[in-house]
Amino acid sequence: MSSPVHRVTQDHIDAANADLAAPLERDYNHLGEQLARRGVAIDRVRERVGAFAVALPTWGVGTGGTRFARFPMDGEPRSVIEKIADCGTIHQLVRATPAISPHFPWDRVNDTDELKQAAAAEGLAFDAVNSNTFQDQQGQPLSYKFGSLTHTDPDVRAQAIEHNIECIETGRALGSRALTVWVGDGTNFPGQQPFIESLERYLDSMAKVYAALPDDWRVFLEHKHYEPAFYSTVIADWGTNYLCARELGPKAHCLVDLGHHAPNTNIEMIVARLIQFEKLGGFHFNDSKYGDDDLDSGAIDPFQLFLVMNELVDAEDQGRSGFDPAYMLDQSHNVTDPIESLMVSAMEVQHAYTRALLVDRPALRAAQQNNDALLAHRILKSAYETNVAPITATLRLRNGAAIDPLATYRQSGYRKAKAAERPSTGGPSAGIV
Amino acid sequence: MSSPVHRVTQDHIDAANADLAAPLERDYNHLGEQLARRGVAIDRVRERVGAFAVALPTWGVGTGGTRFARFPMDGEPRSVIEKIADCGTIHQLVRATPAISPHFPWDRVNDTDELKQAAAAEGLAFDAVNSNTFQDQQGQPLSYKFGSLTHTDPDVRAQAIEHNIECIETGRALGSRALTVWVGDGTNFPGQQPFIESLERYLDSMAKVYAALPDDWRVFLEHKHYEPAFYSTVIADWGTNYLCARELGPKAHCLVDLGHHAPNTNIEMIVARLIQFEKLGGFHFNDSKYGDDDLDSGAIDPFQLFLVMNELVDAEDQGRSGFDPAYMLDQSHNVTDPIESLMVSAMEVQHAYTRALLVDRPALRAAQQNNDALLAHRILKSAYETNVAPITATLRLRNGAAIDPLATYRQSGYRKAKAAERPSTGGPSAGIV
Amino acid sequence: MSSPVHRVTQDHIDAANADLAAPLERDYNHLGEQLARRGVAIDRVRERVGAFAVALPTWGVGTGGTRFARFPMDGEPRSVIEKIADCGTIHQLVRATPAISPHFPWDRVNDTDELKQAAAAEGLAFDAVNSNTFQDQQGQPLSYKFGSLTHTDPDVRAQAIEHNIECIETGRALGSRALTVWVGDGTNFPGQQPFIESLERYLDSMAKVYAALPDDWRVFLEHKHYEPAFYSTVIADWGTNYLCARELGPKAHCLVDLGHHAPNTNIEMIVARLIQFEKLGGFHFNDSKYGDDDLDSGAIDPFQLFLVMNELVDAEDQGRSGFDPAYMLDQSHNVTDPIESLMVSAMEVQHAYTRALLVDRPALRAAQQNNDALLAHRILKSAYETNVAPITATLRLRNGAAIDPLATYRQSGYRKAKAAERPSTGGPSAGIV
Amino acid sequence: MSSPVHRVTQDHIDAANADLAAPLERDYNHLGEQLARRGVAIDRVRERVGAFAVALPTWGVGTGGTRFARFPMDGEPRSVIEKIADCGTIHQLVRATPAISPHFPWDRVNDTDELKQAAAAEGLAFDAVNSNTFQDQQGQPLSYKFGSLTHTDPDVRAQAIEHNIECIETGRALGSRALTVWVGDGTNFPGQQPFIESLERYLDSMAKVYAALPDDWRVFLEHKHYEPAFYSTVIADWGTNYLCARELGPKAHCLVDLGHHAPNTNIEMIVARLIQFEKLGGFHFNDSKYGDDDLDSGAIDPFQLFLVMNELVDAEDQGRSGFDPAYMLDQSHNVTDPIESLMVSAMEVQHAYTRALLVDRPALRAAQQNNDALLAHRILKSAYETNVAPITATLRLRNGAAIDPLATYRQSGYRKAKAAERPSTGGPSAGIV
Repeated sequence: MSSPVHRVTQDHIDAANADLAAPLERDYNHLGEQLARRGVAIDRVRERVGAFAVALPTWGVGTGGTRFARFPMDGEPRSVIEKIADCGTIHQLVRATPAISPHFPWDRVNDTDELKQAAAAEGLAFDAVNSNTFQDQQGQPLSYKFGSLTHTDPDVRAQAIEHNIECIETGRALGSRALTVWVGDGTNFPGQQPFIESLERYLDSMAKVYAALPDDWRVFLEHKHYEPAFYSTVIADWGTNYLCARELGPKAHCLVDLGHHAPNTNIEMIVARLIQFEKLGGFHFNDSKYGDDDLDSGAIDPFQLFLVMNELVDAEDQGRSGFDPAYMLDQSHNVTDPIESLMVSAMEVQHAYTRALLVDRPALRAAQQNNDALLAHRILKSAYETNVAPITATLRLRNGAAIDPLATYRQSGYRKAKAAERPSTGGPSAGIV
Repeated sequence: MSSPVHRVTQDHIDAANADLAAPLERDYNHLGEQLARRGVAIDRVRERVGAFAVALPTWGVGTGGTRFARFPMDGEPRSVIEKIADCGTIHQLVRATPAISPHFPWDRVNDTDELKQAAAAEGLAFDAVNSNTFQDQQGQPLSYKFGSLTHTDPDVRAQAIEHNIECIETGRALGSRALTVWVGDGTNFPGQQPFIESLERYLDSMAKVYAALPDDWRVFLEHKHYEPAFYSTVIADWGTNYLCARELGPKAHCLVDLGHHAPNTNIEMIVARLIQFEKLGGFHFNDSKYGDDDLDSGAIDPFQLFLVMNELVDAEDQGRSGFDPAYMLDQSHNVTDPIESLMVSAMEVQHAYTRALLVDRPALRAAQQNNDALLAHRILKSAYETNVAPITATLRLRNGAAIDPLATYRQSGYRKAKAAERPSTGGPSAGIV
Repeated sequence: MSSPVHRVTQDHIDAANADLAAPLERDYNHLGEQLARRGVAIDRVRERVGAFAVALPTWGVGTGGTRFARFPMDGEPRSVIEKIADCGTIHQLVRATPAISPHFPWDRVNDTDELKQAAAAEGLAFDAVNSNTFQDQQGQPLSYKFGSLTHTDPDVRAQAIEHNIECIETGRALGSRALTVWVGDGTNFPGQQPFIESLERYLDSMAKVYAALPDDWRVFLEHKHYEPAFYSTVIADWGTNYLCARELGPKAHCLVDLGHHAPNTNIEMIVARLIQFEKLGGFHFNDSKYGDDDLDSGAIDPFQLFLVMNELVDAEDQGRSGFDPAYMLDQSHNVTDPIESLMVSAMEVQHAYTRALLVDRPALRAAQQNNDALLAHRILKSAYETNVAPITATLRLRNGAAIDPLATYRQSGYRKAKAAERPSTGGPSAGIV
Repeated sequence: MSSPVHRVTQDHIDAANADLAAPLERDYNHLGEQLARRGVAIDRVRERVGAFAVALPTWGVGTGGTRFARFPMDGEPRSVIEKIADCGTIHQLVRATPAISPHFPWDRVNDTDELKQAAAAEGLAFDAVNSNTFQDQQGQPLSYKFGSLTHTDPDVRAQAIEHNIECIETGRALGSRALTVWVGDGTNFPGQQPFIESLERYLDSMAKVYAALPDDWRVFLEHKHYEPAFYSTVIADWGTNYLCARELGPKAHCLVDLGHHAPNTNIEMIVARLIQFEKLGGFHFNDSKYGDDDLDSGAIDPFQLFLVMNELVDAEDQGRSGFDPAYMLDQSHNVTDPIESLMVSAMEVQHAYTRALLVDRPALRAAQQNNDALLAHRILKSAYETNVAPITATLRLRNGAAIDPLATYRQSGYRKAKAAERPSTGGPSAGIV
């Protein structure tokens, strides 16, 4: 008989909240007064933030790594069921992450119902399912070494198409309504593959995947500047991504990962372009300084995160046609407890959204119309500079979550308990050089 | 009575060629033997190169500068007529630049016929005309400080539209058949302008310009990553450029300037995308290491120039639908004699084209099909590594141009004569800080 | 008889402050309560911020431009005396910019005393003087087209050395105690100059300038990744800058301009290196997204500005040996009223400094020692996320400056009055292409 | 009894050379005539190239990968002895790679003599030994998750120091005379570690390693812009690298890896700086488009490789004090047969060196002295554009190596034989996400 798994209890949360509630109330009230001076009703803001959600990637609760090494931590989840438990804990403490995004074949199980039940028990729904044709799996007949959906060999393409269709079917059973397709297909040498034919093969393959989408599903295409291919990548930029989404049809949309762009790119403008041309499908939130670093959201450039959110809130406010993006975290937690990083990152995204709600849009539009660049900028900045933590903390308190999720989690002993429950299976994990 | 203007004489060219012809013939013959081993007929290559042309920008024969300073040289052209004389000298010595691309209002004259005759006298035709709404001109009623085709004020937009239409009319009189539109419109501050509305205004304005295009004309839209705007630029990347060209209609195409991309961008892949989706209009050739440096073509990354040409030759060979790009140099000559830079750059572009003709395309396709990355790369590289100078030199010799244009020009005393003919008008020219 | 020049009056400032004082007091008190919870005494913070100053560049009060164009505004200063008046107005409203940094020969006058008196009348002292050998001036015997302190011709180098020594002499008369040397010397072509010999010539020239420094002076060397030279720049990075400063001697230090680095560079780490090796001389504050954009401080990446300040405050707190940096704004105001930009930027820098003062350094050191990456990061972030505006506003109120400098300036009618006082001298100012 | 291992035979090489020798001779002779016109004696060039060598990394003969996946090929070496066999084959066919650079603990064996004999049998010596403290190994007491030589815990630092000293001892036994130290130590979050203390710990640790160097040894410090750390890296740039090498003492030098720089960096100028200040230790040759892509040398930017070589040859010609760099390939072969990539890359590096030998240095110096930028550039370019393949092919022929190493290798059946000899040990190798 197995011993019961450790959980953070509501009592623990309530006790942790007890001491923090009174100063939080004073902060909330004073912020309310400040916002009222600007004509903003804090409760209305809190309500909108309460409806905001960002999904968790199941792979995010394990320790990430680089091509050089991975340094695992104790108590890592060893199965998708254990991953769901960790995601549930995050949602319990933050109440902003009500869905998870699974990755196949990593999360493959024999019994889909078991997955559904495990998620339901944590109050979690299923967001977009992710296919994986950038790795070879045990027993896989054909290799993706030289590509998957764009491979020169039609049999390899068929295998990759089939895998994507299987993901749709699994996702359907789980209650998901979207498929995210990221392929690393590309080249390491000038001349290795012809650019045009590669993209034609991609479109052919994706048309077959597209045809398998249920009526109420969407497919999100994800572009990336480079890596794992280091000379060219088939879907390398939003221009190619958009063109493919348009070729495929109305169910196809573009997914923006904040780390998948050339240096110095104005990402918020790309977001605006995709909104304007009605192809924005969703986001992978993270942060980066160099490449696809997959750092915690807002850890490097929080103002950029706000500027992206500013576009999203503006589209929301305007009721832009076709605007219905899916939000997800996609990070690699190499040096932190992934649960902590995901909690803090979910709040960081939530705070960026909250700040964007505070932008005085009529005043902004007037300043823009007058070419009053400085005033327009200051209007954005004064929203950005507002410390909105009291709003989300109050939301959490009212939802039974933690005012201070990080401290509450640390005090709960969760990780230590998991380290005992989940003994490590292997030795150190070396990277690839 | 003015004294006759100095010209490089055919006698001078012939004399300079005399000593070089014999070794050139040996080099050409040996290269012919080497190419024959690869199954390539050198004379056929020479013929195709002979049909290749790249246009000269009229503004390129003056010394360029930066925002910090401009350091003029003696003998600079002071009028469009003098610019045409310099362009004519380049063409006389290189025979690869049979057209010029004028810029308005810089090249505005009262009598268009005078321009036509001056060009015809040099054997030069008129390539695309360029409009200018990124500067304010003397007597211009409204300022472009906050934009031109995208300005919030409809009167400013109307003025910019009107200027573009006037350019079309002048171009028509000159025998040009294309308009190139580059706008620097953008912002220096997050929030300064809304991204979507700005692009909508651009499209509205350009639709009016488009409507004024004669039946046999094209319009080339030019994108640029940044500068003069330093936070956002309305047409910042090929994705936006493509979308605008598509919205406008079949006469609208995208122009690629090699210096107008984010760091690390794979430009040759962008070229392939525009070929694939039938919107490649043309090129501004130059080179860069950091930003829009406008350095001499091939001076920094000659292999990239070859890879771009490789896409173009491949499209040419395949007879790709809608493929008919216009080629132009667009460089800023800050520390060289512009005539020398333009001659050398025209040959550099010509050499890249010639090397691309040498690619063994059936072997390349086979290696690509077999995922033989190294062999495919080596096939490109061996074409690139071929020293094709004997081919273009032989072409020049047969066309009455100079085997060694740089030495021949220097020996001719052209610049010194111009320094006497064209006394400088002012003092030192300070930049803008 | 000239009419009296317009000034912002103290009455105007006091009237503008009247309505804002009461809510400010409540904000200040509540922030005080919040900081007290973290163990921070708000009044002590306010005192340290009160001692913080950032110098104004005299050239910053004119409208800037790019190589394409400059779009002047009405009422621009036409002389150094008028520039000083504008700087005085900034200091009057913000009380954080008590010194100005002049640029020669732009600010050259016959009578240095007149300059001193004009500045003193505004309560302004003289910060570092700046030399200019990146432009040719009217009547200058030799050109800097191919370099100044590194030129191959010893006579050009001597001219550039002489100019720098003259700057020291003028600065001495003005009460300055530092010379800032930025040279744009470099190349546009591989091969144009040898790297080693160029740097040797730089060191030879600078040794002569160094020898002319008074005992209590310092010289600040400024490096820049690129521009105006587009292939190589003699002092292109902090490594070269450091080596030169070390070679020259103890009076030579490195100046960090936030826009003078390669893409993705971790600037705050460079700052730490220069602190560690005791060669940090000072800063040019601004912001950038692409190159040396010279945008307003904190307009693009305010978190980076905070991280830089975090290093500076840490060094201050530790009493690091040799740590005594000079702070200056260096921005190009192309689309705003320069006075507004400089006021807002001075406050932005001040706010970054204030936030850095709030970092709980003992807790940070403990988290670092425990490799608690997330907690260490959160400690920085919680300081950064604090809205410190009530602290600087209170400081301003107590110093007779404006609670809201931007609104107070706009209401004062200053610019409009200057537009009348200072009629424009010329036509539109075209850039350089 | 094991069957004898497959080897490429001299007979096979000779047979492959037979048909190619005659056209090669004609090419060599014609190139000799061309060079003679420029005053260059081809035989003298060939002799210098014959003395040029570049070392092979033992890890380079296995298939590389990314954090996402590794796709192994058949016949990969499974032990250091098999790696040496592959390196021997490369050297046999190319005769430009007479030494190998081992990596510990990857190449650890019980019996060092066995290693020495295996290498000697292939005609290979031992170049610099490489330590590895960026991964955890089986049975290692302390983890490098949060750093090695810079770790906050002195016991971890001691372990990393001890490993480096052990590498020196092993290297000594092998006949090596240098240690290369690359650490990935750094941070993923602003605030994670203090910059100054981290570098102080690095210097403390390295001083202990330095103290263990034999008299005739050098230590090469390798810097890297980023990865595996994604916010800051302790030895991130050449400035830090130089300062550390200087602090440590005369045996410490800087190693330049071509892929370890910020975007747009002028690497050849860094090389010149390190030559000038007498700290250039050596090179890791490879190529890259985005980050540390570890692509084949010259595959992306062959002109940059030439410009680097130009600095090296110039220093060689001048007999620069302290100039004695070690050259090594360091590439990751993800989609090619590593033996093929290493052969082609060794020739690419050799060709870049050969081209640099052709630069007319007196003429270059004269053009530089005259600020004749275009001519100086053309002098470099005409050396670069020379197809020097006949020189190295002739060298190979005379040394008993292959005129066409790639074709000769492919025809030998080496890889197929190894696939039979070296059955794969495991399943597919997944990356780290």
